[in-house]
Amino acid sequence: MTPEAPAKETARVEAFSDGVFAIAITLLVLEFRVPRLGHDASGAQLWSALRELWPSLVAFFGSFAAILIMWVSHHGLFRMVKLVDTPFLYANGFMLLMVTFVPFPTAVLAEYLGHPGERVAAAFYCFTFVLMSITFQLWWWTTTRRRLLYEHVAPQQVARIWRSYRRGFAVYVAATALSFWSAAVGLGLCVALWVYWARLSYRTEV
Amino acid sequence: MTPEAPAKETARVEAFSDGVFAIAITLLVLEFRVPRLGHDASGAQLWSALRELWPSLVAFFGSFAAILIMWVSHHGLFRMVKLVDTPFLYANGFMLLMVTFVPFPTAVLAEYLGHPGERVAAAFYCFTFVLMSITFQLWWWTTTRRRLLYEHVAPQQVARIWRSYRRGFAVYVAATALSFWSAAVGLGLCVALWVYWARLSYRTEV
Amino acid sequence: MTPEAPAKETARVEAFSDGVFAIAITLLVLEFRVPRLGHDASGAQLWSALRELWPSLVAFFGSFAAILIMWVSHHGLFRMVKLVDTPFLYANGFMLLMVTFVPFPTAVLAEYLGHPGERVAAAFYCFTFVLMSITFQLWWWTTTRRRLLYEHVAPQQVARIWRSYRRGFAVYVAATALSFWSAAVGLGLCVALWVYWARLSYRTEV
Amino acid sequence: MTPEAPAKETARVEAFSDGVFAIAITLLVLEFRVPRLGHDASGAQLWSALRELWPSLVAFFGSFAAILIMWVSHHGLFRMVKLVDTPFLYANGFMLLMVTFVPFPTAVLAEYLGHPGERVAAAFYCFTFVLMSITFQLWWWTTTRRRLLYEHVAPQQVARIWRSYRRGFAVYVAATALSFWSAAVGLGLCVALWVYWARLSYRTEV
Repeated sequence: MTPEAPAKETARVEAFSDGVFAIAITLLVLEFRVPRLGHDASGAQLWSALRELWPSLVAFFGSFAAILIMWVSHHGLFRMVKLVDTPFLYANGFMLLMVTFVPFPTAVLAEYLGHPGERVAAAFYCFTFVLMSITFQLWWWTTTRRRLLYEHVAPQQVARIWRSYRRGFAVYVAATALSFWSAAVGLGLCVALWVYWARLSYRTEV
Repeated sequence: MTPEAPAKETARVEAFSDGVFAIAITLLVLEFRVPRLGHDASGAQLWSALRELWPSLVAFFGSFAAILIMWVSHHGLFRMVKLVDTPFLYANGFMLLMVTFVPFPTAVLAEYLGHPGERVAAAFYCFTFVLMSITFQLWWWTTTRRRLLYEHVAPQQVARIWRSYRRGFAVYVAATALSFWSAAVGLGLCVALWVYWARLSYRTEV
Repeated sequence: MTPEAPAKETARVEAFSDGVFAIAITLLVLEFRVPRLGHDASGAQLWSALRELWPSLVAFFGSFAAILIMWVSHHGLFRMVKLVDTPFLYANGFMLLMVTFVPFPTAVLAEYLGHPGERVAAAFYCFTFVLMSITFQLWWWTTTRRRLLYEHVAPQQVARIWRSYRRGFAVYVAATALSFWSAAVGLGLCVALWVYWARLSYRTEV
Repeated sequence: MTPEAPAKETARVEAFSDGVFAIAITLLVLEFRVPRLGHDASGAQLWSALRELWPSLVAFFGSFAAILIMWVSHHGLFRMVKLVDTPFLYANGFMLLMVTFVPFPTAVLAEYLGHPGERVAAAFYCFTFVLMSITFQLWWWTTTRRRLLYEHVAPQQVARIWRSYRRGFAVYVAATALSFWSAAVGLGLCVALWVYWARLSYRTEV
């Protein structure tokens, strides 16, 4: 309505999104359960119980890195966004839905990693990121389709982001399928993708 | 006191409200409970336990959508608000009270959906939105009554929002009553209302 | 350092405080525990189990109102604050410590209200607000002592806030003591104080 | 891209960090578990159960103070930061990873303090701060190495912060080692360091 209204709108969506990212990333710690060994447990027993939490540590670290990389990416993308409209708010909200869901597959993975159910747990975990990738693509599709970007964003840049999303989607689908064969391979593929993305954001933005 | 103070005030209320919305929407994931099948559970057992979580998924998705639509609506309404006073802060806080309560009926619904108690759980869920609707109406009443809106907001727009709230209230009351007869019908009515509102915000704002 | 630095600082402390208030107020809902009656429970059983949650509802509503009123008060006080320094940050943090603690006595109250332990639970709840009152006084003492207020804040206003805090402190001490005799009287005294404060903020600010 | 973009970027990183700090500090309260004595428990039994929560209170208070001091420190450091780039975002995220982890060792400490396992629990707690110290040093290394500070920040100030970090690291390593001998000594060393830092920030900034 007023000339500055769109800018204010962007700020509020970013703040809300940041809040959701910040909470989802912090809730991951709730997945760690304090070993309840009773009050008479010796130090050695507690030590051994803490060491058995390694799957929780792996799952925590992986999901933290994943959400952090998504936040950095969301952050970079938002720098290109000039305007906000209602479809964009829903597309953004749909993406946040998946982000808030991450602590649950993380907790499932932490519970079953290193045990017979680990392949199903890993496939469930990877599949969450297949859906995540779809919501990111929907977000980007809404943003570009409705011309919400700044004028200075080049078509090549838009196309490069599309390519990056399509590759990510393919990798997550492969990781989900491979998890049924080996949890380590499926999860390793996800980690490799995150490292690749983190390095990419290093090279393109710095 | 200073000419810009009111603007600053609005910003802080919006930030606080966004924080509450963001946290309430993220806490919904805590409703998912990791299946505790023991470490020897096979992948097939885990798979079957995860599939049995469909009521949690339905409840999570529904409540996420409901809170998101309320946030988008709150966001749109706040664009009309110019001034903030103490009664407004309490009306806003009363509305946030209901928003923070949503994870509880959601968890109750997730626990009993598909079981004999589902009709009571659905009625409890729908009734939460009856109360929610009342707090939104109180919010709007306070805002309009105390003349906190920008001058350019037309009386027709104010009246249209009142009509929309009254209809929403009637639908929620009907959904609560119908839930005692069929959980699916009661919940379906709520979902239909949310879809209608989401579409409405599409048409009026974009 | 630069002339605008203090303003930026205030903004960040307010944002952090708002975050803590928003999270503490939203965590209150975690106190509600879903009745685990098993999947075969009838609607009537669920209904009766939900009705037995009335102490949770009372505790939730009371603590929500208390935190909301404190937030509105904090909000009003911050409008008088011009500068921020390190002692102020610690005084503010100490006050937030008490705010984040509120969900615990609330949960204890919800568990024991209506049962033999209710008087101790109520006294524990009221005593939390005795400590809260001390941290608010420490906050105000730091703010006034270090001359962080705007020049236009009158000494009478400062004195009026001191009086209000001293009265609040006395009421909370009395509520704690009376709780050992009757939980309803102790808690009722707290509620009366909150209603008084809410009305006061209505009259003085609007 | 535009001249004001960096400033906006700093604001968003600060807001995200503040969100994570605020949530981590508020989640500490979840570590308190309501004594479940059954509904027939007398007031005296509840009173005695509440008194037995002293380890939770110690752990809560310690971790709250630690996170608060880190937040104040983060806050002071950010005032020197002019620019933000992707490596900085990851270094900051890595540091936040440790901040969000704090509630877990806090809960372990609360469970075992005053029991045979307390020395292992204290060592685990102190070791968390060894890792925390490493992430803070990485953060500072990234910030200074990539020249993200304002021009007016003196090399002496940078060097003084390095010295402070190295000392902190040494104290945490010592505290971890000494915890295996006595939990009180290890934890006392951490508390002494926090008091020293809190006083330091008083003297240097005020």
